Amino acid sequence: MSIRQTGEFGLISRVVSRLGEPGPAVLLGPGDDAALVVASDGRVVASTDLLVEGRHFRRDWADASDIGRRAAAANLADIAAMGGTATALLVGLCAPADLDAGWAELLAEGLAEEAGLVGASVVGGDMTSGPTLMIAVTALGDLHGLAPVRRDGARPGDLVAMAGRTGYAAAGYTVLSRGFRTPKVLVDAYRRPEVPYAHGPAAGRAGATSMIDVSDGLLADLGHIADASRVHIDVLKDAFVVPDQMRDAALALGVDPYQWLLAGGDDHALAATFPEGAPLPEGWRVIGKVGTGSDVTVDGRPWSGATGWDHFRV
Amino acid sequence: MSIRQTGEFGLISRVVSRLGEPGPAVLLGPGDDAALVVASDGRVVASTDLLVEGRHFRRDWADASDIGRRAAAANLADIAAMGGTATALLVGLCAPADLDAGWAELLAEGLAEEAGLVGASVVGGDMTSGPTLMIAVTALGDLHGLAPVRRDGARPGDLVAMAGRTGYAAAGYTVLSRGFRTPKVLVDAYRRPEVPYAHGPAAGRAGATSMIDVSDGLLADLGHIADASRVHIDVLKDAFVVPDQMRDAALALGVDPYQWLLAGGDDHALAATFPEGAPLPEGWRVIGKVGTGSDVTVDGRPWSGATGWDHFRV
Repeated sequence: MSIRQTGEFGLISRVVSRLGEPGPAVLLGPGDDAALVVASDGRVVASTDLLVEGRHFRRDWADASDIGRRAAAANLADIAAMGGTATALLVGLCAPADLDAGWAELLAEGLAEEAGLVGASVVGGDMTSGPTLMIAVTALGDLHGLAPVRRDGARPGDLVAMAGRTGYAAAGYTVLSRGFRTPKVLVDAYRRPEVPYAHGPAAGRAGATSMIDVSDGLLADLGHIADASRVHIDVLKDAFVVPDQMRDAALALGVDPYQWLLAGGDDHALAATFPEGAPLPEGWRVIGKVGTGSDVTVDGRPWSGATGWDHFRV
Repeated sequence: MSIRQTGEFGLISRVVSRLGEPGPAVLLGPGDDAALVVASDGRVVASTDLLVEGRHFRRDWADASDIGRRAAAANLADIAAMGGTATALLVGLCAPADLDAGWAELLAEGLAEEAGLVGASVVGGDMTSGPTLMIAVTALGDLHGLAPVRRDGARPGDLVAMAGRTGYAAAGYTVLSRGFRTPKVLVDAYRRPEVPYAHGPAAGRAGATSMIDVSDGLLADLGHIADASRVHIDVLKDAFVVPDQMRDAALALGVDPYQWLLAGGDDHALAATFPEGAPLPEGWRVIGKVGTGSDVTVDGRPWSGATGWDHFRV
């Protein structure tokens, strides 16, 4: 049944039934003019992202549930990158009126499932019809009294570290865009990122001086830290090991796998800087060093390839 | 200069420069993975809305600043309708890559200006290119310790009251859609709603039992209160006076002006129910009565015209 047939309010009721039980931070969920969410320390962290069909997702490359998980992950990772724990998502869906209502229901399930990984819930949203399928997600989160870990706190001498993985989703994207469906580990990584959510607050508690969600590409995102902190960052290529299946796919497709590892973004790894000598929290590994100056280098030299993604130019 | 030429990060920097000084609730504004906003009583009110070109706005009917004001107003009104005071907006913009960057800058100015009316600020956002121009706004707000005024608290015997005006924006929309540009008071009302923001928290403090933002149409939105509260609502037609310019336009266009007044929504009036005998706060006027049963009637009879707007069917 199309969403034209269910109507706005029929679709809302179908979608809301797929969201599961609300998490502990939800004081008032969907169905009113606005939701009400706990902000335990008197502050709320908030971030918003848009996903547009054909640019951020394709319906023939992933099912609605996976697209929902990716849409949620992109926002939940932003909360983690401040050192916060997400509490709630608000979701806007713009869709052609002939969209199958079941697709929207599965999307909602995927959003709720990914949010559930951190105890967050979908608390509200808006739906409208329009020519382009588009998903707008806003995530709210709680710092539980921690100072926010910003982009501008890196200092010369700090270590650069990463939690989570890079290159998998970018490799999966390349595989899919060349018309292949395997290796499964890469394609699945593109469809459903595995985000190290808990590593964000852990980094904050461990004294991280800066942190960012790797969404544009590792080198580009470290560049945002370098710019905001007015420092130079050098990345050690040897800190990255090319996994076997990524190496095979790179060979078959004629791609430098380090381009995926260093400039691919959609895995939503977390990158952060820590004072030298501070013990890194579990799951974080050193990938480079902060120095004086500006820009990002790899083994002391500028990276020859693209460093990331510009959403207006690509 | 097009946004393809400025690029994503160039446009962000231009837009952020138009947002003015952050309000008192902003702890961390645009430029990081997420914003940080005060939630003074340990809770945050949150609501999200999408506006799609051709459906919610037309670039030939209003300039970017007015479109920004309307986009902000739609969300700020949702916060007011819970009894809250808005603190922050997050804004997603999806736009064709040939959009003039100046248009996006003016949009940001309009958003910030409307938010400034209640002391709120634009604290973050996302921009991407896509085939359809679309604005996604999320508003955050603070109840300052008040209980949220929900849709489900109306009780038989309550009075139905309204703050703000209805019909003006709907009349302006009809005028514009027939190719006219006057009367100015109607067309301006469509372009820039005058929302009674402060009347929402005032109603909450005065003991309103339910409240809603009139966005779909007065009768349709009172229908949401009637459904959620399991009551019947009767609206008194005589409580509405047709303003002279609305009457003239209605005559000229062959429209029943009460259709605008009772089923037009885009003015973002607030409708609420109050216990009988409770003194109404300033700016609220009685427009009907709550009884036992279901549905909404006008002078005891079902309304013959459309009662509002379904965003998938119209």
